[in-house]
Amino acid sequence: MTGYPTSIGSSDESTITLLGKNLADELMGQVGFGELAFWLVAMRRPTPGELRVFESVLVALADHGLTPSAIAARLTLTGAPESVQGALAAGLLGGGSRFLGVTEDAGRFLADALAGHQEVGNELPTTDDGWDNLARAAVRAQKEAGRLVPGLGHPVHKNGDPRTPALLRIADEEGLRGPHLRLFEAVGRVHPELLGRTLPLNGAGVCGAALCDLGFHGDILRGFALLARAAGLVGHLAEEMRRPIGTAVYNEVHHATEYQPPSG
Amino acid sequence: MTGYPTSIGSSDESTITLLGKNLADELMGQVGFGELAFWLVAMRRPTPGELRVFESVLVALADHGLTPSAIAARLTLTGAPESVQGALAAGLLGGGSRFLGVTEDAGRFLADALAGHQEVGNELPTTDDGWDNLARAAVRAQKEAGRLVPGLGHPVHKNGDPRTPALLRIADEEGLRGPHLRLFEAVGRVHPELLGRTLPLNGAGVCGAALCDLGFHGDILRGFALLARAAGLVGHLAEEMRRPIGTAVYNEVHHATEYQPPSG
Amino acid sequence: MTGYPTSIGSSDESTITLLGKNLADELMGQVGFGELAFWLVAMRRPTPGELRVFESVLVALADHGLTPSAIAARLTLTGAPESVQGALAAGLLGGGSRFLGVTEDAGRFLADALAGHQEVGNELPTTDDGWDNLARAAVRAQKEAGRLVPGLGHPVHKNGDPRTPALLRIADEEGLRGPHLRLFEAVGRVHPELLGRTLPLNGAGVCGAALCDLGFHGDILRGFALLARAAGLVGHLAEEMRRPIGTAVYNEVHHATEYQPPSG
Amino acid sequence: MTGYPTSIGSSDESTITLLGKNLADELMGQVGFGELAFWLVAMRRPTPGELRVFESVLVALADHGLTPSAIAARLTLTGAPESVQGALAAGLLGGGSRFLGVTEDAGRFLADALAGHQEVGNELPTTDDGWDNLARAAVRAQKEAGRLVPGLGHPVHKNGDPRTPALLRIADEEGLRGPHLRLFEAVGRVHPELLGRTLPLNGAGVCGAALCDLGFHGDILRGFALLARAAGLVGHLAEEMRRPIGTAVYNEVHHATEYQPPSG
Repeated sequence: MTGYPTSIGSSDESTITLLGKNLADELMGQVGFGELAFWLVAMRRPTPGELRVFESVLVALADHGLTPSAIAARLTLTGAPESVQGALAAGLLGGGSRFLGVTEDAGRFLADALAGHQEVGNELPTTDDGWDNLARAAVRAQKEAGRLVPGLGHPVHKNGDPRTPALLRIADEEGLRGPHLRLFEAVGRVHPELLGRTLPLNGAGVCGAALCDLGFHGDILRGFALLARAAGLVGHLAEEMRRPIGTAVYNEVHHATEYQPPSG
Repeated sequence: MTGYPTSIGSSDESTITLLGKNLADELMGQVGFGELAFWLVAMRRPTPGELRVFESVLVALADHGLTPSAIAARLTLTGAPESVQGALAAGLLGGGSRFLGVTEDAGRFLADALAGHQEVGNELPTTDDGWDNLARAAVRAQKEAGRLVPGLGHPVHKNGDPRTPALLRIADEEGLRGPHLRLFEAVGRVHPELLGRTLPLNGAGVCGAALCDLGFHGDILRGFALLARAAGLVGHLAEEMRRPIGTAVYNEVHHATEYQPPSG
Repeated sequence: MTGYPTSIGSSDESTITLLGKNLADELMGQVGFGELAFWLVAMRRPTPGELRVFESVLVALADHGLTPSAIAARLTLTGAPESVQGALAAGLLGGGSRFLGVTEDAGRFLADALAGHQEVGNELPTTDDGWDNLARAAVRAQKEAGRLVPGLGHPVHKNGDPRTPALLRIADEEGLRGPHLRLFEAVGRVHPELLGRTLPLNGAGVCGAALCDLGFHGDILRGFALLARAAGLVGHLAEEMRRPIGTAVYNEVHHATEYQPPSG
Repeated sequence: MTGYPTSIGSSDESTITLLGKNLADELMGQVGFGELAFWLVAMRRPTPGELRVFESVLVALADHGLTPSAIAARLTLTGAPESVQGALAAGLLGGGSRFLGVTEDAGRFLADALAGHQEVGNELPTTDDGWDNLARAAVRAQKEAGRLVPGLGHPVHKNGDPRTPALLRIADEEGLRGPHLRLFEAVGRVHPELLGRTLPLNGAGVCGAALCDLGFHGDILRGFALLARAAGLVGHLAEEMRRPIGTAVYNEVHHATEYQPPSG
């Protein structure tokens, strides 16, 4: 029989173990929820500074109003009010490449650029000029491959996403403005000369950079973005229960439908 | 055109508003993730004591090892590794009536018993005897209707769920051992004489009681249980990426399949 | 080691078995998709008449325009265009108690009424009068229990759902207008005298009755409604790829949002 | 107000329109379910030959035993038996790049190779030699780009997937062995000389080729694979209701769990 190793949790008749600790005695009442979320992935407890940056990321990504994801969750509750889990799942399923994917893409782009730089024996830069050079190389490579630079641009916050300077400041206060954030800032400085236009560093991107500086791998970044969004969606579902809009959205769409029979 | 009211979030070109606050200036770096989750549903910021009880609940419900839900999430990642949101959603979809539903059912059962008692003009009890009488009436009514008393019993923790005394103690420390928790404790004392056997007060049930004492309505309790579980599932997915078991679980089931052709 | 029995499918190096048949030699090219869907649940091949009724049900339930479910699927594709499975899942998740549940509820209501009648040794009626009496008893019991009679009423088709007479006719042509359909028709005749108003027999309800007459259990009826809806949703997703409306729906809602900061 | 165009369905008080037809009068009882699924995407009714090939594809993809996807659906039903839609959605969410994606990837690979050939003014081949040359160019390009050739290889059917010759034969019988299938067959002939080993043409790949020969675009192929799988999953869920294995799978995994506390 195969054994299935896990380091997350287990239980026996009298004890529940989570992350190697006694859940009831050592975690409940002593560990915050954000702290636990960090620990569950990193497999180590965050320092207070790491926790502050991490929770800032989760707070930054929790909600963005009546997004496609929030509308889908609310419409799903309209049809299946008995299944809160279905409505939450429907909302999360919209967290794919186009929206939440930016956090992951930006983190990966920065991590790959840093890894490529260090693989060939280079030290990390120590000056803004040094970071700018590294950023230029990364942006140029991305452009030459015909790919967008992730983390640049925002459909609403065209002149700057307010989350970006806020997170940079918080990371700096905690001594956690590390190489991914520094490279991201440098991308913000150098991209206009290479791309021919000036785009804001967006919030999803800076969150990806900050999570990488906290030591997380690109593969799991979308997981954190989804966890943050889950809190926002629970808020939307609670509001939908108190003051529903799902039926009104459906009616609006229904009445604006223009039926065009197929020609076939 | 219909207007869609919301109190959660909105944004314009330069500002993101969440819960009436400036996200970048007033929330990021100053509000924890658990705190935000409470606020998003309650529409008010929790006190430090409320937050401690609330986060204890989320920590208590985050994980319970390789549950059906965690296994489903991991198997889904096996088939669709590019879609973390799909794997997380699949895991949450198992959070229905049988597992996470207990939190909701227990909260509703207690809230209904309290409401029924108060509707006819009764004051809430002030002594253990008084709570026991109220609990007897509630358990008896449930039994007569042929329904189980939610929050009693656990398949593994047969002699007591360690989360129950822990959460009661924390709520007591914060002055938040309110009527739902007191009634739940009384159910624990009186049910043996009415049901003819002694069952433990389980962790899902005590969490439901505590959330109701924090002012939350029964309809949204499953939402919090799902949020807690989302953190646990992100941990499982991160572990699945590092050290996968999905394919091994599948192989185990595949090899133990006994094919029985239909007779029809 | 546990053995996992299944009668659906299995495979070895050279053969794929489905429902006890050789998939490649005995099913592909010889069995239709609707036929297979029937067989997979009933564990027996349908007769041509059964198949015609069954496929009429699936065709009847496949689509109802831009429903909340179709809109949710399209919005999900907007956010995660790389994950067709996520968009389809989001659409199906709206198939809960309020919409697709009617098929199941109506089937169960009729099956329970028939079982209750037969349990006490009664024969099934042979005349319309007999069916009317049975229907009266069932409607009265439902009303006295404070429950709605499932399968009655439709928000759009107030004077009659066109699917109902069509399915009754098809079942009759195939000799499959069985006790569930007959009782459902009788409910249509007698409910005005008992409920004080005349409501149409809706399409979801008649489909539930027809599926029960085909021998299916109430528990799986929602599964067929979901399968039918899956075909409709794949159509919607294909259309969304060709001529997207997801972003327009989002913009409409976004611009009609009225932000009301919480008072708390 | 924006108008939302759709060609799928609409309804008014007395009529339900689907694909420009009167649902009750022109579709129910006259159109099969597979036929409707084709029509909903193609926006035209299939010929009998097209329908036979199309339904052969759906039958071929409906089930493959207790796959990760079927196990996830069953485990989800264990936790949320009240939500068939959640269990079905969980099963479909495993239909991502690794399993169902092959149908789409193979279809796209073949369609791109044909488009690239025709774009520069070439006629399609008329001999096996001609197809082999085209296949060699496509396989070589794929290999040089460091990508796998989709549709080759199968973990179980190492010496040949029985669905492949069956579908080729059926398509041939219906006069629908078109350029995508011919190129796919040629890939089967030429890849050993280019890749240095002989792999079987798998069933998912041949289904992708056949769907492209029916005129479908690569973007929607996964949708059909999911629809086929939905029928299989409804069968699994019905079986899970009759003879559950979810709890046994969970117990097996639970008992084989090896807890390894994190070192952090």
